[in-house]
Amino acid sequence: MRAEIITVGDELLTGFTVNTNAAVLGQKLLEVGVGPCWVTVVSDNEEEISSAVRRSVERADVVIVTGGLGPTADDRTREGVAAGAGRKLELRSDLLGRMRERWRARGPEMPESNTRQAYIPQGAAAIENRVGTAPGFRMTCAGVDVFVIPGPPAEMRGMLEDAILPYLESRFPDRIRKYRTLHTIGWPESGIAQVLSERLPGSLQADEQWSLAYLPHAGSVDLRIGASGSPDQVNRTLRGVARRIRRILGPVVYGTDGQTLESVVGSLLRTKGLSVAVAESCTGGLISHLLTNVPGSSGYFDRAVVAYSNRTKTSVLGVNPGTLRAHGAVSEEVAVEMAWGVRRLAGTRIGLSATGIAGPGGGTKAKPVGLVYVGLSVGRRACGFRFRFPGGRELVKRRSARAALNVLRLYLLGGTLDGLEP
Amino acid sequence: MRAEIITVGDELLTGFTVNTNAAVLGQKLLEVGVGPCWVTVVSDNEEEISSAVRRSVERADVVIVTGGLGPTADDRTREGVAAGAGRKLELRSDLLGRMRERWRARGPEMPESNTRQAYIPQGAAAIENRVGTAPGFRMTCAGVDVFVIPGPPAEMRGMLEDAILPYLESRFPDRIRKYRTLHTIGWPESGIAQVLSERLPGSLQADEQWSLAYLPHAGSVDLRIGASGSPDQVNRTLRGVARRIRRILGPVVYGTDGQTLESVVGSLLRTKGLSVAVAESCTGGLISHLLTNVPGSSGYFDRAVVAYSNRTKTSVLGVNPGTLRAHGAVSEEVAVEMAWGVRRLAGTRIGLSATGIAGPGGGTKAKPVGLVYVGLSVGRRACGFRFRFPGGRELVKRRSARAALNVLRLYLLGGTLDGLEP
Repeated sequence: MRAEIITVGDELLTGFTVNTNAAVLGQKLLEVGVGPCWVTVVSDNEEEISSAVRRSVERADVVIVTGGLGPTADDRTREGVAAGAGRKLELRSDLLGRMRERWRARGPEMPESNTRQAYIPQGAAAIENRVGTAPGFRMTCAGVDVFVIPGPPAEMRGMLEDAILPYLESRFPDRIRKYRTLHTIGWPESGIAQVLSERLPGSLQADEQWSLAYLPHAGSVDLRIGASGSPDQVNRTLRGVARRIRRILGPVVYGTDGQTLESVVGSLLRTKGLSVAVAESCTGGLISHLLTNVPGSSGYFDRAVVAYSNRTKTSVLGVNPGTLRAHGAVSEEVAVEMAWGVRRLAGTRIGLSATGIAGPGGGTKAKPVGLVYVGLSVGRRACGFRFRFPGGRELVKRRSARAALNVLRLYLLGGTLDGLEP
Repeated sequence: MRAEIITVGDELLTGFTVNTNAAVLGQKLLEVGVGPCWVTVVSDNEEEISSAVRRSVERADVVIVTGGLGPTADDRTREGVAAGAGRKLELRSDLLGRMRERWRARGPEMPESNTRQAYIPQGAAAIENRVGTAPGFRMTCAGVDVFVIPGPPAEMRGMLEDAILPYLESRFPDRIRKYRTLHTIGWPESGIAQVLSERLPGSLQADEQWSLAYLPHAGSVDLRIGASGSPDQVNRTLRGVARRIRRILGPVVYGTDGQTLESVVGSLLRTKGLSVAVAESCTGGLISHLLTNVPGSSGYFDRAVVAYSNRTKTSVLGVNPGTLRAHGAVSEEVAVEMAWGVRRLAGTRIGLSATGIAGPGGGTKAKPVGLVYVGLSVGRRACGFRFRFPGGRELVKRRSARAALNVLRLYLLGGTLDGLEP
């Protein structure tokens, strides 16, 4: 089953709007076993739209058109699609009545200009729009299903999920494709790929049943497992492959399908009834910002001290001036004393710290930009970890903050500081 | 001048990569007076690529193809484009030599498979790639300029700016379109639109010379001015319109063309030789994270204390327990004492604070989610500001942090706490 996606709109051509609709449609179509084979973007021009529709009906089995269904005169998709399909538009009084009702429920009378939105091609079936006012429609042209829906992402998504996907799923019930993503941290892509290629045969190329894609970003690697077949087969395959990968990679996998590192750390802290305080230098508040993005984080996050100056490190965190002199602010020793100091200051069980050189300035040969130490103090013990990150200032901050959260996660998983290898 | 953009790649069709290349190309083409009229996405399939190229040459004046120039067998763009243009590929030994040199400079010998990348269609001119290894090329088919460049965004962008835009600019020197964006904070879109519609005639619709678009996001509004004409005209118009808008909106405009609020605040602090310390509650470290994203911020940013608990507010920041009892942690009084406290603790001239309810929990009828107070202390004076933000937790955090930075900016601009209206 081959699909064509036609997105209509000048703002997509000029690049002021990035075409996320096409990406969402592509992913969702795949999930119901329909392969997106062409994406076409055309302007708000009747002739362009009709010619795109004519071509798509010749080559695809399913066509989805989005955008250009608004009430103003520059929205030409209704006319373009009707012309492309060789049909007339007709006023559907049932749609008009429902539109008037929806306007009334919100307050004002429906402006006359919106009447345009109640016209759909003869013989087309209307698709309801829960989010906005413009109805969509579906019609069959020479055996090809053509769906036409509005462009605002929330409306597009709602109608896709309410009407289009269920329809396609019932048309092609035995062939779906689904994905599961495992999020990892701490290993490079090449290392993961090598281990999996040895221990997970078939993992490096797609085969009939399932596929595995490596999606590296900012020092982490997401593993996207895809599986095709009947819904039962697919669920079984995804579960099975995910389990095998987790068994091979162990705690390198921190979450699934969009879980964040900070929410995983938060759940672990909450479950174990522990609280944490944070001392940040190079991360500049980012560790704290990430931790507090999680609703309910006030239950386990006590405070953070962002100590950019040496004076703050000594006066607030109690770092020994001698340690600063002997090893410099960017050192394992100072990271450890910062973690220790903030834990004592806050009276929490755990202290976490990061100190490093985020750049672009401040690097030396011995201590280059990207050198970062993370400190972890638990009760009466503490230890430090050395990292070296590539990238610019914001990327080094992000990687450092995630590395610190990962050190904390690995401690919470294992329950001991011994043998931690972040 | 009408352009077609052809982007090649299965990952674009399946939606796992969002087509940002098409958006960048659209914007950049517009700037040199070439109108992007079609975007076509096709799979890594020779026949699809050649048929897309054939069609584009029939309808466009300029064609840009990106993606599918990699070294592996599934990269088919070279073959597809050559077939579409009715030409043979030929090995260009000069390109091969340069590729080998680049590999050698990095370390390893060039793998034999990369030799494929030195083939370009007969009669095509090579385009150098500063960032990656695959060369691009330009050829003329029936009077149409066809450019073919790799898909990785950094490579695509580099070659666009190094070779394609200068070429097009010299071909169509008298007609360009450029944009300037003014960033505002503190006023709603409707308020800005009303003032500008009254005092800046023609601002609400595009006309021949210039246009104005309102781009609201997360409580701020960007104003995008567009102008067409000769380079001289365009620069004059953009300068003139921007100046008029700045005169009307005053300090509501904080920057131009991608400047961040935190970099503007940073420049003001540096120029005035002032330093700041931050006390954060609901923003959870985000104010500090934003300030420290700016290179060189250690010159004016001393420290931040993220005081999630009342205990931290009293013990570290010196907030009076009586104030907490009388007014609650989310109050103007506590915001003021936090700003005062962190300024004294750090010994900086300025203290900045935020306390509020980020949600989703913790709201009451009197103090709902989104209620935020910002405190500013300068020398021996201090004052507080009340805000009410819509949105979820992360949006409230972001808006609060930006509001706090804006309070600081307005103080630095005016040099007094009197009459601040953020």
